[in-house]
Amino acid sequence: MSAFQKTRRTKVRRIPQNAVYDRASIDAILDEGLICHVGFVADGLPYVIPMGYARAGDKVYIHGSTASRLLTSLAGGVDVCLAVTLVDGLVLARSAFNHSMNYRSVVIFGKAVAVEEEAEKIEALRLFSEHMMPGRWRELRDPKPIELKATLVMSLAIAEASAKVRTGPPIDDEEDLQAPVWAGVVPLVLRRGDLRADSTGIEPPDYVTLDQRFS
Amino acid sequence: MSAFQKTRRTKVRRIPQNAVYDRASIDAILDEGLICHVGFVADGLPYVIPMGYARAGDKVYIHGSTASRLLTSLAGGVDVCLAVTLVDGLVLARSAFNHSMNYRSVVIFGKAVAVEEEAEKIEALRLFSEHMMPGRWRELRDPKPIELKATLVMSLAIAEASAKVRTGPPIDDEEDLQAPVWAGVVPLVLRRGDLRADSTGIEPPDYVTLDQRFS
Repeated sequence: MSAFQKTRRTKVRRIPQNAVYDRASIDAILDEGLICHVGFVADGLPYVIPMGYARAGDKVYIHGSTASRLLTSLAGGVDVCLAVTLVDGLVLARSAFNHSMNYRSVVIFGKAVAVEEEAEKIEALRLFSEHMMPGRWRELRDPKPIELKATLVMSLAIAEASAKVRTGPPIDDEEDLQAPVWAGVVPLVLRRGDLRADSTGIEPPDYVTLDQRFS
Repeated sequence: MSAFQKTRRTKVRRIPQNAVYDRASIDAILDEGLICHVGFVADGLPYVIPMGYARAGDKVYIHGSTASRLLTSLAGGVDVCLAVTLVDGLVLARSAFNHSMNYRSVVIFGKAVAVEEEAEKIEALRLFSEHMMPGRWRELRDPKPIELKATLVMSLAIAEASAKVRTGPPIDDEEDLQAPVWAGVVPLVLRRGDLRADSTGIEPPDYVTLDQRFS
């Protein structure tokens, strides 16, 4: 359980008691999220793009088409800030000022670099697939050379990272506690809706129907 | 229903057939999302911070403590890229390459400026509250002067903006269509969990229990 040294960028200044720097917490948030938001700078201006990703040990892989402006720009090794945010609930306090959300979020700062080596690239594609739907990869055909070529995979070290976590009830001002207003938390959870099959005569696999993540 | 002119920044290059530029689509996504990711540049490096927000006509308001690094930086009128992303489902195709997600996303580029005028600031706080939990504001006491002072509200014009939307089934290569693998969409929806009351003897209000957004 390594702890991260706070850097100038990762030191959490806003509500620092919500800050978490240990790797286990950071990894758990990264592993649960489905998308990340990747920020980068081009011509001095900020860009933010939602992307798929997967974690492998001390790295996060992100991917897109080689045509993507983000990844074209990143291929030279551009600095990025990658954020993953999970919203867990609405926190209804007794004053507007103390309203909040329960959430778990991670930010990682670093240089994303293109993965060129074929074996690592295929492994990253496997990780993207398994991150999105664990159990699926082994049912799929191997990627074709043209598909590998059309997919740009970048890796980002989890070196400069921090997490923020808010849990629990509202925190109200003492003088508001008697206000005649319901207060509490409205938990929010991501659930699976009814499957929409595109194939006929094939049962949905257990890794979909028994997937505990969204049930 | 105005259409937006594509600019160098908002022109969607990656899978352009998923691009949406009309204001009604953009507004609907902004109104449904709970958090945004705000990207900005400081000392030449990218930062991305998850934040609460609310839309009011042609503006998006974002907020935080005046101590926030982001908003301190923004107070001078820094360029931002604001992204809102809604994940609607996992798209399981017959090849890893054609896996995707169904999603709706908006990005807005522009300069965020601090809201200084008190009436606009209070209105923005009302909008934050109503965006997060419609119906709640009228039950709450008025903000105190010290709370207004401690809250920095920024506004960002919805002028340079675009949306991307993916819906529907997987799109497979012709030669994969006979693969013996289930294919389809796993829809994902945000649902309300069991309320966690922090007050006693007060029934949760209708705007919580009848909230159609997460039921």
